[in-house]
Amino acid sequence: MTASIFDTDAPHPEPSTLTAFSGNTLDRQAEYRDEDCLQNALAVEGTHILAFTGNRLILKHDGQVLDPLFGAYELPELQPDFENAVLLGYRDNGEPRIAVPVGISADDLESRFKPTETRALYRDELLDEELLGEAAQAAALIHWNATNRFCGKCGAPMESRIGGYRRVCTACQHMTFPRTDPVVIMLTIDEERDCCLLGRSHHFQEGMYSCLAGFVEPGETIEHAVRRETFEESGIETARVRYHASQPWPMPHSLMIGCYAEARSVEIKIDEQEIADCRWFSRQEVTTMLDALPGSAVFAPQKGAIAHRLIRDWIDWPRK
Amino acid sequence: MTASIFDTDAPHPEPSTLTAFSGNTLDRQAEYRDEDCLQNALAVEGTHILAFTGNRLILKHDGQVLDPLFGAYELPELQPDFENAVLLGYRDNGEPRIAVPVGISADDLESRFKPTETRALYRDELLDEELLGEAAQAAALIHWNATNRFCGKCGAPMESRIGGYRRVCTACQHMTFPRTDPVVIMLTIDEERDCCLLGRSHHFQEGMYSCLAGFVEPGETIEHAVRRETFEESGIETARVRYHASQPWPMPHSLMIGCYAEARSVEIKIDEQEIADCRWFSRQEVTTMLDALPGSAVFAPQKGAIAHRLIRDWIDWPRK
Repeated sequence: MTASIFDTDAPHPEPSTLTAFSGNTLDRQAEYRDEDCLQNALAVEGTHILAFTGNRLILKHDGQVLDPLFGAYELPELQPDFENAVLLGYRDNGEPRIAVPVGISADDLESRFKPTETRALYRDELLDEELLGEAAQAAALIHWNATNRFCGKCGAPMESRIGGYRRVCTACQHMTFPRTDPVVIMLTIDEERDCCLLGRSHHFQEGMYSCLAGFVEPGETIEHAVRRETFEESGIETARVRYHASQPWPMPHSLMIGCYAEARSVEIKIDEQEIADCRWFSRQEVTTMLDALPGSAVFAPQKGAIAHRLIRDWIDWPRK
Repeated sequence: MTASIFDTDAPHPEPSTLTAFSGNTLDRQAEYRDEDCLQNALAVEGTHILAFTGNRLILKHDGQVLDPLFGAYELPELQPDFENAVLLGYRDNGEPRIAVPVGISADDLESRFKPTETRALYRDELLDEELLGEAAQAAALIHWNATNRFCGKCGAPMESRIGGYRRVCTACQHMTFPRTDPVVIMLTIDEERDCCLLGRSHHFQEGMYSCLAGFVEPGETIEHAVRRETFEESGIETARVRYHASQPWPMPHSLMIGCYAEARSVEIKIDEQEIADCRWFSRQEVTTMLDALPGSAVFAPQKGAIAHRLIRDWIDWPRK
């Protein structure tokens, strides 16, 4: 038998595919974006559009059904801003998918329109995985375009180009490109004591414990960021780091990079300004927490969260 | 024997540490940055400063020695802009390390000052690994501050806060944070034919072939980005993806995420507008290319490049 560099002992071949927001299957045709691609896509009959008021996706609801897909003919009453629209890509059948910011405020929307935070789309399972993945791409790009209306170098207005993936200054020609913020999220494991480290933020729902996390800083490797953030938040020193999975996290435009970290110390020291609590949990405790419902005394993040995946896959890791 | 989740068959425990720009050991004290941290650090006797004109680090040269470390007393003639300075962190001995943009242009510098592109610091091995890592952090943050002088939402001036890690709009209070762009860089391997896929950009030095690479887009996992970029640039379909190493890449502020990708097709199809060439190379060919000097008929990126690491570690991977 030939060994393969791609064989690992992980319980899933690609755990990233088991996280929420990762189901986007659009063909982005990234190399072929040009000045006409958005207009051409809008002209295709049957094109469907995701509409955003601020950072909220507008869902149409008609009795039981929630539908995020608008036809072009449905948009005028919402004051669509096509200058800042985004071409997301193309479906298998060639149908383009577009995201459009609208001028009408959430408060002024008719009651048959439900403006919905990206986080709620996921938490309340309002869309299937494919549409949720499209909403992630759309929310990130709509937010980025909205926060880059003016040039960071000279303050003059910027204009959108190539379907919403470039902005160019009308005065100094400075260009800027969509932003994605890498975040490390890690499950620190003490293999000898068979336990893992979880913490809670002040803003978490009562009883929820999750993996520690933080932004990768300029000049860091992923492994550096994991060790620094773990130490800063918990006082725990870590040695080896193993990448496990990643997840698009469109609040507003992060890339979660999920890792395991090897504990090298035991005593926790937290800064209570930064986090509310941090504790070691045994294998038995987290196994219960993974299945516990929100509102239980202690519970883990819901299925679809990369933190859930990291914890679950540690529990399920084949023990040789 | 107990199996560990951290045991892998890779030839190095943490290949990221073997890449250029990864040697930064400053204690960032990221959780303790406040409005006074920069002034306090500047007031410490013996504080050393990295000075930038535009995106170029200024090296002092005195005969043979190139020295990037300025004392505060040496800066006034360079027109330092302390409003946009950055506190990088603290050395083992407690000494703060700071980066300062200066107003004097590269052309107006005296000949004992040598303004140097970040890429040249690495290519020509002008600094030791630790200083090179500090320069990476500094270059990224200096560039980010310089390109966010004005608010993207309203166009008013922004001001630097907490030592250069936050900018706040003086009119609308919009806040923005340092930017790091995740890039996937991958060695696609055909294990059956024992060969790997390398390409060359139009701007590469004649004869150099490297790994394919591209920015992670909003709404993608790392694995999605690897497969999309590989297909777009080469027409090659890939299946499994394995993370290997990461590298800070301060041109101006990327995080290179190095992966292996499993080839599922053979026939290469390139868009010559995008890349100049793309070819399969045998194990024997790349082994020679890794040691070949720039200027050889074909050669691989130099040691310290994450592409070099990916290729070298594939060659060195233990064959069971």
